[in-house]
Amino acid sequence: MQLNLHQTHHEIGDFEAIFKYLTTNFQDGQSRGLHLFPELFLTGYPLQDLVLQKSFIDEYLSFLADLSLWSERQFKTNSKNCSILLGGLSYHFDSLGLPSQIENVIYLLEPGKKIRNLYTKQLLPNYDIYEEKKYFTPGIIPCTFTFAGKTIGLLICEDMWFSHLHEVDPVEQLKDHLEGSHLKCDLVINLSASPYHLGKFDARVNRALEISQYLEAPFAYVNRVAAEDEILFDGRSFVVDGSSVVAMAKSFLSDVLILDFPTYTNPLKDQLRKLNTTANSWATMFSTRLSFDTTKLLTLKDDECAEILDGLLLSISDYALKNKMNKITIALSGGIDSSLVLVILKILRDRQIFPLTLEAVFMPGFFSSSQSYDLAYDLCRNIGVKLTTMPIKFIHSTIRTVYRDSFQTEMAGLADENIQSRLRGAFIYARSNEIGSMVLNTSNKSELAVGYSTLYGDSVGALSVLGDLYKSEVFDLAQFINREYNQIIPAEIISRAPTAELRENQEDSQSLPPYDRLDPILESLLSQRFSVEDLIKKGHKKDEVIKVYQLLLKSEYKRKQFCPIIKLKAKSFGFGHRVPISKKMHS
Amino acid sequence: MQLNLHQTHHEIGDFEAIFKYLTTNFQDGQSRGLHLFPELFLTGYPLQDLVLQKSFIDEYLSFLADLSLWSERQFKTNSKNCSILLGGLSYHFDSLGLPSQIENVIYLLEPGKKIRNLYTKQLLPNYDIYEEKKYFTPGIIPCTFTFAGKTIGLLICEDMWFSHLHEVDPVEQLKDHLEGSHLKCDLVINLSASPYHLGKFDARVNRALEISQYLEAPFAYVNRVAAEDEILFDGRSFVVDGSSVVAMAKSFLSDVLILDFPTYTNPLKDQLRKLNTTANSWATMFSTRLSFDTTKLLTLKDDECAEILDGLLLSISDYALKNKMNKITIALSGGIDSSLVLVILKILRDRQIFPLTLEAVFMPGFFSSSQSYDLAYDLCRNIGVKLTTMPIKFIHSTIRTVYRDSFQTEMAGLADENIQSRLRGAFIYARSNEIGSMVLNTSNKSELAVGYSTLYGDSVGALSVLGDLYKSEVFDLAQFINREYNQIIPAEIISRAPTAELRENQEDSQSLPPYDRLDPILESLLSQRFSVEDLIKKGHKKDEVIKVYQLLLKSEYKRKQFCPIIKLKAKSFGFGHRVPISKKMHS
Repeated sequence: MQLNLHQTHHEIGDFEAIFKYLTTNFQDGQSRGLHLFPELFLTGYPLQDLVLQKSFIDEYLSFLADLSLWSERQFKTNSKNCSILLGGLSYHFDSLGLPSQIENVIYLLEPGKKIRNLYTKQLLPNYDIYEEKKYFTPGIIPCTFTFAGKTIGLLICEDMWFSHLHEVDPVEQLKDHLEGSHLKCDLVINLSASPYHLGKFDARVNRALEISQYLEAPFAYVNRVAAEDEILFDGRSFVVDGSSVVAMAKSFLSDVLILDFPTYTNPLKDQLRKLNTTANSWATMFSTRLSFDTTKLLTLKDDECAEILDGLLLSISDYALKNKMNKITIALSGGIDSSLVLVILKILRDRQIFPLTLEAVFMPGFFSSSQSYDLAYDLCRNIGVKLTTMPIKFIHSTIRTVYRDSFQTEMAGLADENIQSRLRGAFIYARSNEIGSMVLNTSNKSELAVGYSTLYGDSVGALSVLGDLYKSEVFDLAQFINREYNQIIPAEIISRAPTAELRENQEDSQSLPPYDRLDPILESLLSQRFSVEDLIKKGHKKDEVIKVYQLLLKSEYKRKQFCPIIKLKAKSFGFGHRVPISKKMHS
Repeated sequence: MQLNLHQTHHEIGDFEAIFKYLTTNFQDGQSRGLHLFPELFLTGYPLQDLVLQKSFIDEYLSFLADLSLWSERQFKTNSKNCSILLGGLSYHFDSLGLPSQIENVIYLLEPGKKIRNLYTKQLLPNYDIYEEKKYFTPGIIPCTFTFAGKTIGLLICEDMWFSHLHEVDPVEQLKDHLEGSHLKCDLVINLSASPYHLGKFDARVNRALEISQYLEAPFAYVNRVAAEDEILFDGRSFVVDGSSVVAMAKSFLSDVLILDFPTYTNPLKDQLRKLNTTANSWATMFSTRLSFDTTKLLTLKDDECAEILDGLLLSISDYALKNKMNKITIALSGGIDSSLVLVILKILRDRQIFPLTLEAVFMPGFFSSSQSYDLAYDLCRNIGVKLTTMPIKFIHSTIRTVYRDSFQTEMAGLADENIQSRLRGAFIYARSNEIGSMVLNTSNKSELAVGYSTLYGDSVGALSVLGDLYKSEVFDLAQFINREYNQIIPAEIISRAPTAELRENQEDSQSLPPYDRLDPILESLLSQRFSVEDLIKKGHKKDEVIKVYQLLLKSEYKRKQFCPIIKLKAKSFGFGHRVPISKKMHS
């Protein structure tokens, strides 16, 4: 008997496309076996306030009714056994017709029958980027489903991740339920919409193997693939049989995994896993990893770079497609960040997912070196992108004059530095408005963390490509791409000292610790939640740690106004990072 | 016996000031009676991710230990009965010393005794701007506290607002607990940190009266006063005795309410209230108010204007003080929004809460009328603020030339309009950088809703003053201020047709429905969650409703990068409004 994992790629709320996918695939009578679709497949995820918007609710309910009617009348199969399990929303209404409860559920579609709600998600994640308790009511009842004589245990995403943040363990409940009903589990399935971050896939497989061994049944995991603003869903649906991964779908691409119904294989003794209940707890998510080496430079391995590149490509293409953009304009400075973003875009263009036009603009000011232009030029020649030079220096000079005439004082220091960055922001958006293109942001995580950027200046853009990569990781990714793509980035772009070129002989190192010290401190403070005192005890320079922590606290107001950042790490700026702007500063 | 409600005003995490307040007020031996402080008084609220930051935790625990030691050794009183109840955090740690649970609790301080944790908040709000389930573990046990022979029932904020969003009703629990213990309740107290919105005070009093009558005890409500980024806490602590409000503290100001221990008064028959359990439910918060008149123009009454003005003054002064700013620069256009913001700042300056320097900058472009300058000038003369003119037209002209030379095409249309707005954004920030001043944003809620603003242009600023007031409400507030403050705003600023002056003879009405139709549609869609179809059925013009809804959906990317908006309404943009940027557009 067949098991089919549909790792599909649809836009949030695109009921028409979803309806078409189902009706096209399941009306020829050839379908057979069990078909699994991701969590909230019928609506998309995350929906946020859309779930409460009446227009959205009305359209969804009408779509659900159509789907039920289709299942009853047109869903046909020649096979004895063919069923579809898919994730969707279930609305409950009060006597006034207002929504009183919303559940995240698994629906069943069977040929000739109405749609049926089988199971409600029990564990609602509500930490970091998650806010499901804001919208959904949890289920309380475990559920098994019988298909072709097989007993199938149902889970939705977080249900497999019990920790002390939750009150019940749906896996334990499922075991109790099976035992109480004298049933032997033949398969556990988990419909997921699980956001990507580096290392997440291994965690999923490890957890699936634990549960598979615990319930002595194979485990099928079907995951969403998509990018929704800052959140990436990497797909990589998989099946484990107790011992190992027996099938895996593509990463960051839609895919359908078809396999024979898996059976449970007893693992070798050294492969046995204990059911671990500290996953997704504060101890792993929010708190000091006591063994973390706070001084070691963060580096990305080649396979991590390849994975990140694939993720970035999906994010950018999804954002562009969903917002109907096929032109992208990049402000190129001759530095590594903007160069790397442009090269990533060139790789995207070459993949021909959609017709994409790229252009680069170089905006030299008084302090831009000729080397910067040469490097930007060389890069654009290497990748076949038109480079336009639009100087800001004449305008900068005019502004200095107008400012002096208006305020009877010279524009100097920080004001004179920032105006250059803001002029570049204004110019790149003038170009964007003129040709209807999208501007991508090129800031990195190190800059964002310490506020080393100009609000409304180099911080502009629709989407931040590198905002979850520290500067040292930007270098790793650039070097990886150079190895894979024939040294496409001129070597000097990578080797020159980072500079904002906003004043004479400026270098980042005049304002910040060198990145090989800054980045480990930032990671220790942000992801590992070490205290300043901890880091000083571990041998970091006191002044440096205090300065970095103060910069981090003070720059919250800039991050508040920043664009969505493609999330690549367990702990990122963006939606999952919420810190008051106004607060007493401690060191 | 005395009851003291301390409606104090401290910065988030300012342990030193809080320690000083307590030790100064309670060590002379003169204190007596029961002293109540707001929810999370010891830390401030909302804390967001600060509660998970190790530096914060370490400092808080050290402060808590100091406080306990102070209570044990230095808290003295000549009175037989003196106790302090205050809100704070209680941390639990696992075997590795990592936080495993955080509770929002009531602490008790008694002379000569260690600090003691009495009660844990049971209902954790997690809708709209609230996200307490993200951080806190709920309590499950009701609690009464005996003071001078009196039985006092304890509640924290949301505990009084049971609805179907919650699983238990702490008020019912309290009643059961009292009955089970054969106790008669002498007083119910609620320590709150309750965010302000228009109409919230009446809701609190009504609910307090319901509970007071239900438990047959007076009800004392002590609330925080502060502004934290977008959230305002209005104070207005009060005591009801079953029949009516017997005492009330100041609004938007710190205050201490001292009164004799209140007794319960049987209400008249026509004043009896039923314990209502639909407060704070989706039916009132998120859904269509079925009786709402979708065509009626929103208007602010005088008392509402006065309340809003007080709220705005507290928000601006708190934001400035906490971020150490005592200069504010406003870009004045000669239109009503920026004029109103400047007048509000003048009122703030006159109140002399802190020394505040104001300056206004008028930045005329090719399409600025001389009337705009004259009105800006008249306003500044009326209020005694220096107005500097910094023209953008020469620079605009230079940019057009450089753009043409660079791209071989004329900068036109939207690009030519937006560049003016962005130049103004860059200039006002150059001035801000030069003198170290804060720029306040002057956009209104109608513009924000439909995206009628230029990203990085007129949308810049540290804090949005009017972002929760529709344009029609901006007029109401301006007219109210003119009545109260001797016609300080030139009449023509209020009477002229709104225009962005970015092209020849531009008026808002060319792009948008008139505000008296736009604003009711927006309020119906945003706060009442009507669907487009509902509004068409109710007689709104189909094209107009669809256009407004589309603009609302499309402009999410602009709001994502907007500054904090002072929250004045139950439903606002900002933290409590979360909608994906990328989504299928429905009408």
